[in-house]
Amino acid sequence: MMEQFLENLVEECRGYIGEGNVATYIPELAKMDPNQLGICVISTTGKVYRAGEYMNPFTIQSVVKTIILLQALIDNGVDFVKERIGVEATGKPFDAINMRAGSLESQHINPMVNMGAIAMCSLIKGKTEKEKFERLLNLTRKLACNDKIEVNQDVYLSEKRTGHKNRALAYLLKSYGLIEGDVDEVLDTYFKACSISVNCEDLACIGYCFCSHGKLPRKEERVFESEYATYVNAILTTCGMYDGSGEFAINVGIPAKSGVGGGIMGVVPTRMGIGIFSPELDEKGNSLAGIRVLEKLSKEMYLSIF
Amino acid sequence: MMEQFLENLVEECRGYIGEGNVATYIPELAKMDPNQLGICVISTTGKVYRAGEYMNPFTIQSVVKTIILLQALIDNGVDFVKERIGVEATGKPFDAINMRAGSLESQHINPMVNMGAIAMCSLIKGKTEKEKFERLLNLTRKLACNDKIEVNQDVYLSEKRTGHKNRALAYLLKSYGLIEGDVDEVLDTYFKACSISVNCEDLACIGYCFCSHGKLPRKEERVFESEYATYVNAILTTCGMYDGSGEFAINVGIPAKSGVGGGIMGVVPTRMGIGIFSPELDEKGNSLAGIRVLEKLSKEMYLSIF
Amino acid sequence: MMEQFLENLVEECRGYIGEGNVATYIPELAKMDPNQLGICVISTTGKVYRAGEYMNPFTIQSVVKTIILLQALIDNGVDFVKERIGVEATGKPFDAINMRAGSLESQHINPMVNMGAIAMCSLIKGKTEKEKFERLLNLTRKLACNDKIEVNQDVYLSEKRTGHKNRALAYLLKSYGLIEGDVDEVLDTYFKACSISVNCEDLACIGYCFCSHGKLPRKEERVFESEYATYVNAILTTCGMYDGSGEFAINVGIPAKSGVGGGIMGVVPTRMGIGIFSPELDEKGNSLAGIRVLEKLSKEMYLSIF
Amino acid sequence: MMEQFLENLVEECRGYIGEGNVATYIPELAKMDPNQLGICVISTTGKVYRAGEYMNPFTIQSVVKTIILLQALIDNGVDFVKERIGVEATGKPFDAINMRAGSLESQHINPMVNMGAIAMCSLIKGKTEKEKFERLLNLTRKLACNDKIEVNQDVYLSEKRTGHKNRALAYLLKSYGLIEGDVDEVLDTYFKACSISVNCEDLACIGYCFCSHGKLPRKEERVFESEYATYVNAILTTCGMYDGSGEFAINVGIPAKSGVGGGIMGVVPTRMGIGIFSPELDEKGNSLAGIRVLEKLSKEMYLSIF
Repeated sequence: MMEQFLENLVEECRGYIGEGNVATYIPELAKMDPNQLGICVISTTGKVYRAGEYMNPFTIQSVVKTIILLQALIDNGVDFVKERIGVEATGKPFDAINMRAGSLESQHINPMVNMGAIAMCSLIKGKTEKEKFERLLNLTRKLACNDKIEVNQDVYLSEKRTGHKNRALAYLLKSYGLIEGDVDEVLDTYFKACSISVNCEDLACIGYCFCSHGKLPRKEERVFESEYATYVNAILTTCGMYDGSGEFAINVGIPAKSGVGGGIMGVVPTRMGIGIFSPELDEKGNSLAGIRVLEKLSKEMYLSIF
Repeated sequence: MMEQFLENLVEECRGYIGEGNVATYIPELAKMDPNQLGICVISTTGKVYRAGEYMNPFTIQSVVKTIILLQALIDNGVDFVKERIGVEATGKPFDAINMRAGSLESQHINPMVNMGAIAMCSLIKGKTEKEKFERLLNLTRKLACNDKIEVNQDVYLSEKRTGHKNRALAYLLKSYGLIEGDVDEVLDTYFKACSISVNCEDLACIGYCFCSHGKLPRKEERVFESEYATYVNAILTTCGMYDGSGEFAINVGIPAKSGVGGGIMGVVPTRMGIGIFSPELDEKGNSLAGIRVLEKLSKEMYLSIF
Repeated sequence: MMEQFLENLVEECRGYIGEGNVATYIPELAKMDPNQLGICVISTTGKVYRAGEYMNPFTIQSVVKTIILLQALIDNGVDFVKERIGVEATGKPFDAINMRAGSLESQHINPMVNMGAIAMCSLIKGKTEKEKFERLLNLTRKLACNDKIEVNQDVYLSEKRTGHKNRALAYLLKSYGLIEGDVDEVLDTYFKACSISVNCEDLACIGYCFCSHGKLPRKEERVFESEYATYVNAILTTCGMYDGSGEFAINVGIPAKSGVGGGIMGVVPTRMGIGIFSPELDEKGNSLAGIRVLEKLSKEMYLSIF
Repeated sequence: MMEQFLENLVEECRGYIGEGNVATYIPELAKMDPNQLGICVISTTGKVYRAGEYMNPFTIQSVVKTIILLQALIDNGVDFVKERIGVEATGKPFDAINMRAGSLESQHINPMVNMGAIAMCSLIKGKTEKEKFERLLNLTRKLACNDKIEVNQDVYLSEKRTGHKNRALAYLLKSYGLIEGDVDEVLDTYFKACSISVNCEDLACIGYCFCSHGKLPRKEERVFESEYATYVNAILTTCGMYDGSGEFAINVGIPAKSGVGGGIMGVVPTRMGIGIFSPELDEKGNSLAGIRVLEKLSKEMYLSIF
């Protein structure tokens, strides 16, 4: 019945395809077929529900910010991370430079904007940059219960070649002492992280771990501390949908994170993890049809936390 | 037992008194006795719990923004209000001017910052400014189940005399077409609204109405539409504690609104309404000891929505 | 010969009429006939040259900022004025709010932007607001060698009725302690000052006083200190043409001040005073044909100070 | 007599040494001996006057922006350069990011701020980056009448190693399409240009070329078009002393450019070129004692263009 409900939802929301635009700022992303819409839901009973193109791969893009934040929390604890990366909404687009009075301080960034995510990459522990990224990739695989997750090399190289704005943000962080280590290496980790290839089921499973405050579906094993889930879920609510977070909180009311690859990860605390994918974006950079799906799902199933 | 728990909480948090500062920007507020700390909780079972100086009066100040927003929603509906007053966090202090590229647009303000609240005052229906304010005052009394609520005239006159910044904000809104009607009259409504005198029990009762999605404690009567509560609760979470909302979401996780009078109204959806009062403020303008009480309450009773 | 040269210049530049727009933000200004172009030049030999509609009246608008600055300097001296009103370009339009990090300080304004000019009005000496304005009007008459100069009441009342943005700027200044006295009275002086009615010959004569470092044409009498002329001329060069000052310095190279009434006052140090009038403005608020006249005059007569 | 006057001036202004601070943001600059003050003046009669440590070498730093601008003008003409690099003051410090509404456009930068200067480097003609820099170095030598001018390798490498902020600015320009070519190569030209080693006599000679509108001292040869000198001198006046340009225009009134190496180049149109050197800087990044010398020189000799 739930599966049928999701099928209907997907078919209904396919009507929104054509109203948005596939991301073009990374040349490789522009090649995506816009006619895709999929969803996967994992409830706390452990049941998995799927509909549409739930198996199609896409790059995780900004959704990985939640995993980078989690890894940074695991490696450094809440206090250290909060001191280094602010937690307030910036009121600006994800790639904005939020300096004040000519100074860039930790409180001007947050984990869900590019500057904050790049800064967090330098907080991941590891002897080499390679080791740091592998730890992040392994955490992603573990949360998604999927050992086969890999980086999409074409997207990674495309981002690396064209990511001048992110390079600017990284050097700015460096010049104000907000990242340690070699800027190029930190950026490399960030570009790789954004290029991790996932599908809806992966995102639903990762979302589940946050909704369950650290446990994997159908397992008792705790992957991370409960308070890290609280941290992530709170940040997702206030800043997860970029400068559309306020509107999303009112209309949908589910902690969620979107990426320009078209993915959205939803976290309904204590109830379910959700993964959605549709490549066309609205003008704030969120999956257009994906948000519609999530909004209708929330309203029909009373999922809003408010 | 709950009452005992609250008593202990209040006594413990009295230790924070002395670390903040009573608001001074309105001369009349500066006269408040800093040695006050009170709390009232109304659970959805209808039980009322009290501790500390829960009966002491204080001016509602910015907490009234939630009631102005509710009145604007009741009078105009969700779509109209959302189009006129933005819903995104500004990333700036409550009295900031958030213009972009030399233009002030509805999306640059939100109901929890001064500009947004002043603009909302002009959305309240009424033939005269007097009628508009009386409707707002009556709504406040109804939500608080307290017919005796009145304006503190000394604070009102003090705000009116010294509120140059708010006057500047109002004329700015006027010059960009974001308020209708006479600026002085709109401001008068706003100054009066901020000067409404309440106590912890009033705030707890108002908070209860939002937590119950529109119902009064121990009554079946619906005062307002459920969707307006969702709207308010979502906005409280993303913007209710000014530019400390992100930190508060992580640490406390309760939709809440603070005022420089020292009050905090908390809303735990489906569970309880909370009123807290302590005059000393932290550097962001939130009751310092009040936040501590709310944080401990949330942690002990697992109230975080995240 | 010079007069013939000016005649030709005016006829040539009439061709630019139709490319700009008469100011509309003050309703009364929108009524101006756009088909006007006049010029008057007063050389240091005392000769007066005129062409076009040099006798037509228009309101002085922002050109009066130079006289307000001069009056403030006469009444308070260089050091006091410089401390109260900054002297750096803001890089923003004339009516912009140039706060930094949530604070408004004297260095964020300058005498040629609205906030600075309003703040300067409160530095004019006088027991009553009436006396203050009369002193300013008398200085204007003296500099223009024209006792008949009066306020255009229609424009004054139109500005007063619609000047919400200036009212906002004034209350902002008040809230940050940058103006003393009653805001409404200071604004009244400002609105009246902007509405002073002049013609090209008046502006040329005023410009002459600055070019001669304080002397009236054909007289030995010194109206003000030489250092005040240096102060004004320097400010005109860096900020006189709003955020088009840099372009103007390269193309024309003459200290000058424009007003949205269509007037431009030019000061060629030690050589001449210039008054120009044409109502249509470019997108930065400067007289479009007027700038063309000034540019050609400067190039033909090698007037650039650079 | 002039030489004696300069000697006295230098001795008098040595008293200001100790009130400023040697630049520290480039480690190599921090090693400079603060106890240096020198001046050289070249008048249009071709006479050269010297006093103090006029022979001591220092790196040209931001003074080179005038030469980069000149080279860009020579290579591309006035219209092209003006379209690519704005000419208005930004109202912000030299290394600020002056974006508006999330966009960076050519009008947000100017030739005297770092972003503008970096962007201009990409306008210099040359098949290779090496050739581009050599053309710039040759122009510098020609203007200074000194074939021995070279890059200070230690400073160059120090800037290259630590110039993260400039790297951020360059990538930002790149991401908004305001520089062409390889970012690292453009930056390399910029870092080398800033590290050119000069002395007061070199700067005086370069300043002379601008004051004479393109001619070398004691020669009839025209090195560049007169209109380029007008362009440079105008920009120097409005933006040459960073966000201290307004104050400097009032107090000194000489088109001038300072560098954090302690040098100031002054241009008195049609009268003289000036080179000054003293390593300690004021809080805006201008040579503190150097400005005092220039101010007194201007007042004593009536050099102000206002």
